[in-house]
This record gives sequence, structure tokens and C-alpha cells, in this order.
Amino acid sequence: METLWESRFALRTQRMTSSLIRELLKLTQRPEIISFAGGLPAAEYFPVDRFQEACQRVLATQAHLALQYSPTEGYQPLREMIAEHLSHYNICVGAENVLITSGSQQALSLIGALLINPGDHVLVEQPTYLGALQAFSAYQAEYVGVPTDSQGICVDQLPAALRHGPKFMYILPNFQNPAGVTISAERRARLIALAHQQGVPIVEDDPYGQLRFEGEHLKPLVVEDVEQSGNNGTCYTGNVIYVSTFSKTLAPGLRTAWIVAAPPVINKLVQLKQGADLHSSTFTQMVIYEVAKDGFINEHVRKLRQVYRQRRDTMLAALDRYMPSEARWTQPEGGLFLWMHLPPGTSVWTLFEEAVRRDVAFVPGDAFFTVPNPPPTARLNFSCMPEDAIVEGIRRLSDAIKDVQAKAVPAPAP
Amino acid sequence: METLWESRFALRTQRMTSSLIRELLKLTQRPEIISFAGGLPAAEYFPVDRFQEACQRVLATQAHLALQYSPTEGYQPLREMIAEHLSHYNICVGAENVLITSGSQQALSLIGALLINPGDHVLVEQPTYLGALQAFSAYQAEYVGVPTDSQGICVDQLPAALRHGPKFMYILPNFQNPAGVTISAERRARLIALAHQQGVPIVEDDPYGQLRFEGEHLKPLVVEDVEQSGNNGTCYTGNVIYVSTFSKTLAPGLRTAWIVAAPPVINKLVQLKQGADLHSSTFTQMVIYEVAKDGFINEHVRKLRQVYRQRRDTMLAALDRYMPSEARWTQPEGGLFLWMHLPPGTSVWTLFEEAVRRDVAFVPGDAFFTVPNPPPTARLNFSCMPEDAIVEGIRRLSDAIKDVQAKAVPAPAP
Repeated sequence: METLWESRFALRTQRMTSSLIRELLKLTQRPEIISFAGGLPAAEYFPVDRFQEACQRVLATQAHLALQYSPTEGYQPLREMIAEHLSHYNICVGAENVLITSGSQQALSLIGALLINPGDHVLVEQPTYLGALQAFSAYQAEYVGVPTDSQGICVDQLPAALRHGPKFMYILPNFQNPAGVTISAERRARLIALAHQQGVPIVEDDPYGQLRFEGEHLKPLVVEDVEQSGNNGTCYTGNVIYVSTFSKTLAPGLRTAWIVAAPPVINKLVQLKQGADLHSSTFTQMVIYEVAKDGFINEHVRKLRQVYRQRRDTMLAALDRYMPSEARWTQPEGGLFLWMHLPPGTSVWTLFEEAVRRDVAFVPGDAFFTVPNPPPTARLNFSCMPEDAIVEGIRRLSDAIKDVQAKAVPAPAP
Repeated sequence: METLWESRFALRTQRMTSSLIRELLKLTQRPEIISFAGGLPAAEYFPVDRFQEACQRVLATQAHLALQYSPTEGYQPLREMIAEHLSHYNICVGAENVLITSGSQQALSLIGALLINPGDHVLVEQPTYLGALQAFSAYQAEYVGVPTDSQGICVDQLPAALRHGPKFMYILPNFQNPAGVTISAERRARLIALAHQQGVPIVEDDPYGQLRFEGEHLKPLVVEDVEQSGNNGTCYTGNVIYVSTFSKTLAPGLRTAWIVAAPPVINKLVQLKQGADLHSSTFTQMVIYEVAKDGFINEHVRKLRQVYRQRRDTMLAALDRYMPSEARWTQPEGGLFLWMHLPPGTSVWTLFEEAVRRDVAFVPGDAFFTVPNPPPTARLNFSCMPEDAIVEGIRRLSDAIKDVQAKAVPAPAP
């Protein structure tokens, strides 16, 4: 007889559904659709030649190493390069602070495994990154939400939120996914001071930090943490677990990201990663190292900033030109996304259907909230479309919004 | 103040220690050591030229796809190739039965996440693969052990073991790691019949099935399952979750493996993998596909079988020549390992120290058992050393065993 699979599945799978965004993406993959729904880097700017050279070099000179099993911690030169990068802030970070992961998603999943018992609370921004919710929910996390505004997380609401006793705070400081906002320097300092006071660690997720188009680069939380504690020994020992990735600066298809944290945290994460996938691809790590090294990554990121800035400007101009006056949106200083507050009362799912009918797509904002009935919002990606498509897509989306507004039955008078 | 990390770590990490084997491997990486401790394929036979061509071809023709995000399920042509391979047994397996994973270790970890609630029992062979215990223990599994002999798992002891109500049975049918034994055709049939009767699924871990040096190739359990159920529809819907990998046939450094299972199982595993690492490297999957396709993998595996067979024969001859008469060992018909029963009363850790002092290493067998105080055993790998080193290593190991025997204080008379 056949296995009754449903009755065999573990409790952790019960709240689990396929990521809404990934299902939407499938819907919106018709070629005629202008999609602002994904979060894809611009494929036409992938440094393909450099990847070709790197593959050849690695296989010509170190194939026996590259194709073999390797340590869970990661490829040592890559760990050192990452440590070196953070050392530019005058803080002491060594390779022993670095774990290479199979993308940021694995970093978040391992951190969830490390810290979350079923029912534990995680403090998150509202809205926050959907992939993190998916990673943490697999460990049966509950959430404490804190609102954000144009300066990022509302730190004045943090002390009350911390009374829920969250296991950690999950924070995206730069050009947040989905809202595109950046936490101000003052709020960063306050956030770290609260973490120090209450002994609650911070998971700092920073995939976009290098993609700043304008304005002043702000210190990562991990650097603020060292400066406030005054504890700058031979390696990092503080309260922040920092996560970043090569997905947005080189290419996401190689799934190479990293965690920086205190050595006791890295050691336990290494044990978890041993059980999870033994190690990330040796070959891929070596190729990423060969591509990134000798300053190439900085040079390449300078080019990406120009491209993405231009696309953001095009989207902002089109929004100004076409959108109805009740719609508002964020003005991101970097990253890949902006965030729209739709006219009050808009049904975001009706709008989504109307938009897809007009061959334009976005992500309904609901999925990024942990509270029920959030305001109607939409995440728009500006990184992966050429400029004429951005203008045309925003025109269609504006028409869809006006159409949905016109059809809406006005609320009855109170 | 600094975070009290230990007090923040989740319960699941408390039993977790670094894999003994990985720590041992670090000990035994001195170049003068002859190590039978690892489980490494022979690096000198990696098909490096083929990998070089594959990387060039993928990046020259499909770079925008290869370097971009991709579906969690895996690269479609690779899924189809894997389904096609199992279809040679006259069973219907489609791409919808296949999930690509980041190595077998991730396959085992995802299966653990799917099925194991804390405290659930998993039925395992004694001894069994250490990496599986590590994957399952991260979900706080308990174990029911069933002995193995030269015909594999002792199926006559299964009905009693199944009374513990295990969530699933974890079985390595071919050239088992660590014991090198293969489950006979009769026992395979009995195992599947019991699984059908009791509705307990089987996880079939088959990394070495292609590496048979001699004797008759036996049907995988997944095929036996279809034949017994008579249920061979348009895709596989049975009781077995089958796991295999390219690590032993092409190269482990690319971390590419797969799961074959019924669609409801694959769908839930896809959701778990979304949270765990989003997807395996697109580039790596495409390169593996390009390397494996057009029959290359079969041609390459034929060569590996010859090399490994020769090395196994060399090890068996050296064991016959040098070992004291109280030692016994398995005669594996394939794979990478053989298993020694050391003379009764040998302290395996004393022997390990003595062996390393003589510049030869093995894995003490204790780690592969889930019961306390197993008999003194050792796992010996024969795949990654040249033949003269194998002979010299076995000579040294025999001397170490004789030395430890001579020094042992005889047990007092009862």
C-alpha cells in the first residue's frame, strides 16, 4: 500500500507554502509581460568574460582542489578577502569570523537553525524581506513587527517591542527589500545601543550596501557595534551577525554569500552547515574569488551603480508623470526596489489581476508583512528592465490603478 | 555588553558537535600520512578537460541563464536526464519526480526536515553513514538500529524493530558506507514488502550504485517498490525516497545530487529547499549536465570501476598478507570502503593513536553506530591512494594492531 505522506510530514512543514513571489514569478514569465515583480540583477551586465577566464584559470591550475571535497568553513582566500573588506572600516575582522554560505538564503536558514526554538519570537521590520520570513518560519518562529518610515525602522518603538523577548532582531539597513529605505546614522546608533543594553543580538542583512547611487555611505551595524563596545581585539566578538552576498554585485546563479560573526557563532554555524550541505561548491567559491580579486569587483560595482541609478531615475520620473495623485512611493538611494503606497482602499489583488491583464507585473506588498490587513502596497523592481520598458510598464500600471479606482464601489457613508 | 550566545542557541544545537570524521581528517592531512580515513574520489581521474569544455560552452552560449537565479526544482534538462536514467529499469519516472540538491548531504537534511519531529525514531542499519546521522540529529531524531551482516541489513530483525514506530527507514543498499556490504536481492524484496505492509517509507541512499566492480547489478529499492506494488503509472508515486549524487561518478566539489520521490514529497521538499538555499547553483547544474550528457558519464564510470577495483584488490591482498589472524574484513563488490573487525578487545582509540604515530590513518568505527559500546571496528577507504601507498599503509596498520595487542593487559580471569 502507498505511504500516507501527509500523516508522515513533520510539524514544521504545516505552515509552509510555496513562496508567493516564486509562484507569481511563474505567472509573469510570459515574454510580453513587463515585470517589476522579480528581484533579478541585470543579466546583460554579468561579467561573462571575467567568469570565463576565471573558470579556465581555476581548472588549468587547481582542478584537483576545485573538484574535490573541501572544508565547511569555505575557501580560505575567499574568507580572507571578505574579512579584508570589512577591515577597511578600521575594525578587526579575520577569516575566523567568516563562513561562506550557499547564497544569503542559506545564511538566513542556518541562523534560524542556530537561534530559533519553535515559538521563539524574531523582531522584524514592517515590511520585511519575504525570504527571511520563509527561512525563519521553517523553524516555527513567531514575529514581533516594528514599523518603518523614510528613515528606516522606528527605533522609538523598539523598547516596547523588545519587551516580547525576541531571540534576535532581523534588520536590513540599506535600501531595504522591499521598502527601499535606509536606516539613518542616528537610528543605527540607537539600535546598537539598545542591543547592547538588552543583550539581544542583531542579524544584519546587507545584500545591497555596495549599490549606493548617491548620498553618504553609512557604517554597517557591525561596525557601529565595535565602535560602541570599544572592543576591537584581534577578531570580531560582538553582538551582530552580518550577512552579505555576491549575488547582487557579481551574479546570483553561483549562490555565494557569507556570514561574519563572533567565532563561537561561526563555529556552531559550521556544525549546522556540515549537516545541511557539508560545504558550498569548492569550484564555485574559487571561481568567485578569481572573478572578484584584484579590485575587479569594485570596478564592476561602479558600473552597476550607474546602470541601476539610471533605471531608478527613469522609474521615478515615470511615476511622477503617470501615477494618480493619491499614490506615494519611496525614493531609494540605492538597491533594486522601490515601494508604493497605493491609493487608500485599493484592493491590491484586484489591482494585480488588472495589471497582469495589461501585461505588467509587481509584487503585492501583503507578503512582506507579519501583521494582518496591512495597507495596500506594491514592490517595484527597477534593476532588470531597459528604460523604455520601465516607462511603458509604469504607464500601464498607472492605468490599471486608475481603472481599479474607477470601478471600486465607494464605501458607504458612516 | 556582549551577547550571551550559549544561552541564545536553539535546543537542536545542544547535541551537535563537529563531525568526528572531519576533525580526524584535519589531523591526518600531514603529507607524510597514508590516510585510509577519508572518502575522497581519486582526484587524478577527475575529467578536467571535459569540465573545461563544459564551462566554456555554458558561458559562451547561455551565460545570462547560467549566472542568474533559477527554479528551486533544478535545471530542467538535468532533471530529465536523471529521470531517464531510472527509466532504464522499465519504471515510469518523470522530471516531476526529481529535485536537484546541493550534494547528498542536503538531500538527507531536507528529508530530515520533511519527516522528523523532535523525538521521532529513524530506523538505521548498524553501522550506518555518519553524515546521515548528523543530518537527522539536527532535527532531534532518535534511532532504532538493526544489525547488518555480509548480506546487508538483517531483515528477520526488522519486524521487531518496526514496532518502535519509526518515521522512516534509512537504507544504503549498495557497498554501504561504512561497511562495504550490499543487500541481497531476497532481502531487498523482503524490505519492500515490509514497508508496504506497515506503511513505513524507505529513504534509499545510493551514492555508489554505479561503482560495481564485479557480480550482478541489483535493482534499486525504488524499482522493487514499483514492481511489488504493480503501480507503474505516468510517474513514480511509491514509498521510497531515492537519493543519489554525481559526487562519486564525476566530482564532489560541485555539490550536485538528487532526490527521486512521489510528486507530493518532491513538492514539499521544494518548499523546504526554497527556505534552505533558494536553489542550487544554476551554473554548476548546467556544467554537470554538459559534462554528463551524451553517455560521457557511463564511459567515465567504466574507467573509475577499473581503477577502484584494482585498488580494492591491492588492499585485500595486503590485508591477507599482513594482518593478524584475529582481524576480519568485508569483501566489497564496489564502492570506496571496506570494514574491519579488529581483534576482540582492541581499544580502537589506542589503535588510532598508534596508527597515526606510524603515519597511517583510518576512521574508528564507533562513530557509525547509534548503540553504545559497539565492537572494535575500522573503516578503510581504498579509492584515493596509489597502490604502493595502500600496501605500505596496510603494513603499518598491521604493525600498529600487533603492537597494541602485545601491549594490552589481558583481562583478569573471571
